[in-house]
Order: sequence, then C-alpha cells, then structure tokens
Amino acid sequence: MSVNRSARTLIEAPRGLAGVVVTDTAIGDVRGLEGFYHYRQYSAVELAQTRAFEDVWHLLVHGELPDTEQAAAFTVETAALRRLPDEVRAVLPALAAASASAGGSGPLAGMRTALSLLGAVKGFRPVYDIDANERRRDTLAAAAAVPTLLTALYRLSQGREPVEPRDDLSYAANYLYMLTGSEPDPVRARAVEQYLISTIDHGFNASTFTARVITSTGADVAACLVGAVGALSGPLHGGAPSRALDTLDAIGTPDRIDPWIRERVLAGDRVMGFGHAVYRTEDPRSRMLREIAQSFGGPRVEFAVEVEHQVESILAELKPGRELHTNVEFYAGVVMELCGLPREMFTPTFAAGRVIGWSANILEQAEDHKIIRPAARYVGPGAPVAVPAA
Amino acid sequence: MSVNRSARTLIEAPRGLAGVVVTDTAIGDVRGLEGFYHYRQYSAVELAQTRAFEDVWHLLVHGELPDTEQAAAFTVETAALRRLPDEVRAVLPALAAASASAGGSGPLAGMRTALSLLGAVKGFRPVYDIDANERRRDTLAAAAAVPTLLTALYRLSQGREPVEPRDDLSYAANYLYMLTGSEPDPVRARAVEQYLISTIDHGFNASTFTARVITSTGADVAACLVGAVGALSGPLHGGAPSRALDTLDAIGTPDRIDPWIRERVLAGDRVMGFGHAVYRTEDPRSRMLREIAQSFGGPRVEFAVEVEHQVESILAELKPGRELHTNVEFYAGVVMELCGLPREMFTPTFAAGRVIGWSANILEQAEDHKIIRPAARYVGPGAPVAVPAA
Repeated sequence: MSVNRSARTLIEAPRGLAGVVVTDTAIGDVRGLEGFYHYRQYSAVELAQTRAFEDVWHLLVHGELPDTEQAAAFTVETAALRRLPDEVRAVLPALAAASASAGGSGPLAGMRTALSLLGAVKGFRPVYDIDANERRRDTLAAAAAVPTLLTALYRLSQGREPVEPRDDLSYAANYLYMLTGSEPDPVRARAVEQYLISTIDHGFNASTFTARVITSTGADVAACLVGAVGALSGPLHGGAPSRALDTLDAIGTPDRIDPWIRERVLAGDRVMGFGHAVYRTEDPRSRMLREIAQSFGGPRVEFAVEVEHQVESILAELKPGRELHTNVEFYAGVVMELCGLPREMFTPTFAAGRVIGWSANILEQAEDHKIIRPAARYVGPGAPVAVPAA
Repeated sequence: MSVNRSARTLIEAPRGLAGVVVTDTAIGDVRGLEGFYHYRQYSAVELAQTRAFEDVWHLLVHGELPDTEQAAAFTVETAALRRLPDEVRAVLPALAAASASAGGSGPLAGMRTALSLLGAVKGFRPVYDIDANERRRDTLAAAAAVPTLLTALYRLSQGREPVEPRDDLSYAANYLYMLTGSEPDPVRARAVEQYLISTIDHGFNASTFTARVITSTGADVAACLVGAVGALSGPLHGGAPSRALDTLDAIGTPDRIDPWIRERVLAGDRVMGFGHAVYRTEDPRSRMLREIAQSFGGPRVEFAVEVEHQVESILAELKPGRELHTNVEFYAGVVMELCGLPREMFTPTFAAGRVIGWSANILEQAEDHKIIRPAARYVGPGAPVAVPAA
C-alpha cells in the first residue's frame, strides 16, 4: 500500500476530485478538445449511426462487437429478461402512486425502488462472491428490466395499465411500444435507438463513479445500479433534457430569440442546453442528434436550429473565448419530442441507455477487488473536549 | 478550477483513492495511531458511555449537543417519525417475501427498497432545491424510519406481524421492542444504545463516501441513503459482525483455541474479528464493547475474552509487529448476542446507527454545492477503429 493511512498521510486533491484518476478503464473515453468520445475502440457516434443497441450493449459488457450468431443469441437472451417477475409487478401500482408525490423525479424514483426490489427477487449476490459470468447475467437481468419498469410506472401514474414487453421488437422499439401501447413507426424507433446508444457511456461521470464505489465494496449489482440511479437523479448530473425544450417554449418565436437570450446572459443566468464541462468544441452527441432532428424536418426543428445559431453568436459575442455550444440536452430534447416521448420521460429514457454503461463499469470494477475509500480532513474544533453532563 | 479537465490533465492517485482528501469535514475523525475517534469535538466512546442516542444524533445533525429543552423537543420530533406511511407499510410484506431469496442481505436489501419508496412517498426533493432545515427534516424522517423498516421486514420474513413503534421508548429500546414485541430489559436496551452510538460514524468509510458522492449531484436524501445502504451491504465494507461469532462457535471450547487459530494463521486465512485498516492500537470500540460484555458476564463472555487473549498472543508471535487486535466486529457480535439480537440482524443494526452518520455527511456535503466527479484513464485499444458492418 503506497499510502500509510494509519499515519494519516493525506494527499491534497482538487475540489470534487476533478482530474484525479480513480482507475484504469478499457470501457471508453471522452476527448474534450477533439469533440470525440468512444466506447472501447470505436467512435460512439459511429456505433450509434451504424449498429443496433443490442450490438453496442454486447460490446460494452463482453468487450467486443458480436458476430451475427452472437448478436442473435444476445438479442434472444436479453429480450427474455424484459418481463418482470410477478413479485415486482405486484408492487408497481403502489410505487407509481407513491412516486406521484415525488414531483419531477417520479418515474426515476419509482424505477430506483423497483430495481432495488428486482435485485432481491432475483437473488443477486455480492459481486465478489460470484464469477464474471454470473455478474454479467445479473447486469443483463437488471438492464433489460429498466425499460419495462420505467414504462409501467409511467403508464400507471397516468391511470393506465402497463403494456407487456414484446420480445420480437428491438430494445428501443419495445420501449416505445410499452410506453404507447402501439408498435412504433420504424423511423422513430431508430431515432430513439440512436439516442440511447449515444447515452450509454460518457467518461467517468458521477453516476458511473457511484456505481463503481458501491461495486468496490463487493455489493450486489442491484445495490450498485440503485446508487447510480440516485446520482443520476441529482440536478447537477442527470440534468433535464426537458429544460432545453422549456427554453424553446419560453422564447416562443424567432423574433424573440435575440432579446430573450441577451437578457438571460446579461443577468448572468445559464442558458439551458448550452455549454459542457468537458467539450471545448461542439458536443459530438449534439451534432448527431441535430442531424437526426433535421431528417424529421418541420417548424419545430427549424426553430431549434435557429435558436442554436443565434445563441451561439450571442454567446460568442458576450462571452468570447468560452466556446459555448449546444450540449446533448438541447437536441436530445428535440429528438425525444419528435419521437413522441413525454417530457417527464426524458431523464428516465437517458437512464435506459446509461444503465448499459453502468453495467460495463460494474463488471470492470468487480475485477479489481479493491475498496474505493478516500479520506477527509477534519477541520472542526479540537478533540477531545470533555462531554458535558446531560 | 485548479484542473483543466478539457486538457485531460490527470492526477495520479493511490489505488482505491487511499489517503486522498475529498473534502474538509467538521463531523469527526479517526486517529488510528492513538486508538481514538471522535464525533465533532467529543470522544465517541465518551458520548456512548454518557449520553443518549438522541443526544448524539442531535450533535451530528445540528452540530451541538442539545440542552435539556432541545433534547426533549428532538426526542419528540424524531419519535413521531417512527411510524411508517401507509403506502410504505402496504408493500412491506411483498418486500419481505422478495428478500427471502436475497440470502444474508435480506433485511438490508429490503430496507434499501423501502427507504427508496419512503423518500418518494414523503416527496423528498433534490437537496440543492431545498433549504438546510428541510434537508435536516428529510434526514430525520428517513433515519427515524430505519428501525421500523428493519424490524418489520425481519418479523414479516419470520411469518410474524410487525410491531408498531412506541414513541415513549428511546430509539434503542424501541428498536428492541419492535423486534421482539416486548419491552426490553433496560440493561440490554442501554447496551444496544451504546453500541448504536459507537457505530454512528467512523471516518470516511465507503458508504459515507457514497452518500456524499450522490449528495454532490444534488439528489434527494433517499437517493443518498439508499446508495449508502448499498455500499454497506458489500462484504468489504459492512463486513459481518456475525462472522466473529461464527469463529467462536467453530472453535467451540477453550482447549481448541490454540490449534484452531494456529492452523488458520499458518494457512494464510484471516481470523474474523481481528485486524483493522486504520487502528494500530486496540480499537476503542472494541474496548468499550468488551467492558459492556463483561458487565453481563457468563461463560460466553469469558470464552470470548479467552479467545481474544490467545489470538492476540498467537498473532503477536506469528505476525510480529503487525499489531493485530480485535476489531469492532468481535465484541459487537458478543454484545448483540447477549442482547437477544439474531445474527441476521447484526449488519442491519449497524445500519440503524450508521444512518445518523450518513445523515450528517449528507447535510455537510449539501452545503458544498460542487459535484464529486473524478477521472479514469483509458487504457484500452487505441480509438477510433472503424466500426465493422453488422
């Protein structure tokens, strides 16, 4: 051990551990200066443009793209895991009712609870007590159930019955099917599929890190995922793809873009949908999603593109050198709206993609077998002070 | 920002972030070389020996010990929060049944799920969207419910009805009352209370860190606590106070201590209940719990003391200089057994104390308003490689 914790040798780190390397990873990376991110050795955007969600899922959890036979087997394996155990299904109405009081985080908070229960029902065991194959199976069982849980909770919260999953549809098409009750138009299903692929992983974000910290204790896969869902629900992380749409709505018409944005920027407010902590170029996800949106066309998309255009000019003028571009939220919101997803399902839909990235990170962390346990510096009053009598 | 993440300036850190300072804290600290740990400015052991659980809870979440009036008000406030909302109570039988398949982590996995639901039912909001007082109330509501959840889930898993909480009993006495259905002997209730106080906090452990990472995203208190419970369920963290008793059982009789221990140590096995990552002296919790156990007396306690004695001699002989002493697990197990707690409730009981430490850490982290987001180093094959056709 390079650090003698007993001697309290503490190492200074930047606030929020920014830039501090916790682990090596072979899952992927983000290159902020290049506007590029990848899963394994492949461009994430190219994967989204050319492959099925299940192929990329296989890439993440097995480390390689499947051949035709592997792809077929993986699709069958995961599709069979979409149906929920009766014990979980039975409590969903209660969870949906409870989540109604949970405000905007409704379906996500409900999914957090249901996933925790699913892990218990399926008898998930501590990751250090099982082999790599069993761990992989637990991640598949959990991830495959996420769309079913989210859509069932959403429909129940609307007073409607859940729709049973179909195993003859793709992950994305089945998600839309379970949400709406009717088989989706293939163009919309493919747009959602591309969005989901693009959200699977994105560097060492806070939910991914949470999943890895919990994994490092040896906890079961459900414990790890439930923690990640919790982190994603935080406003500083999961954000809200719907906020960018709220911005579009608030602006209303093209002639109001310029004054509206200037007023916000001069007041020091953030403009939702713009700016990213890592990218100093256009966000590659944003570019891909804009293209998808433009393939749909229509006045809403034209308005969004015009807003992007004008906001970028105004920000370049008022905040020169800051390189503020649209982030993934902006066109993700537009695409999800075009595909018929309700706004309260935007962040949950993000989770339905990201759960694959968490899975890969759990599997990788479990191989390490070392607890992640940093330190804090005590800065309170000197101890011990005698305890006063009660 | 001291680190330019966009330029990928990465900072080397020891494996598992050992010794890396994540935050300043005024909650407490562990001094491994001195065998001393404290909550705020007070010795944790002295607090356990002289104060009520509720007083120490108040110290942790308010930053100071209560005066008489404050103590009375705090006791009333928290006791009123013990009763579960109907929506939560209604699903407990389903959770208990599901947890039956979850092996040893049963009551803890069930509590994880129920606490997630409780947060939704109570409408917990993101910590960054509410003020310090509202955050504090959310932590009280969650923590006060933990003993009720744990005991209800345990009793249901045994085919018995839950026992409703009583608000005229102390936190610890009410815990034992809900577990057994009868008012506990005051000596046992006080022993459990002292154990619970001693487990409230202990440095920057993995579950505390998990709670803080989730908090740093701005997620709600339930999301933070549920992640912490997940981390605690990991075998490398929560451990198993029952394992030390298993050791006592396996040894069986005093004459078998010496050969049994030598065989284990020479085979390179860890002896459960001995050794700690931080303490280089006797664990102060262990010393306090031994005294409590000895105040009960009896052959089981005498045997435990004899095992401790002989194991320490053998370890000093076979592993000189390693300073291996009993850790908190050893006498915690003995004390919980003396107080009538079943072994599967040892780790859950630990959680019923630690939830107060998590609460204090959540409240402190929420003031910081900075996401904890470290980095990983990509070490996989170079990207981009062209994506092969499906």
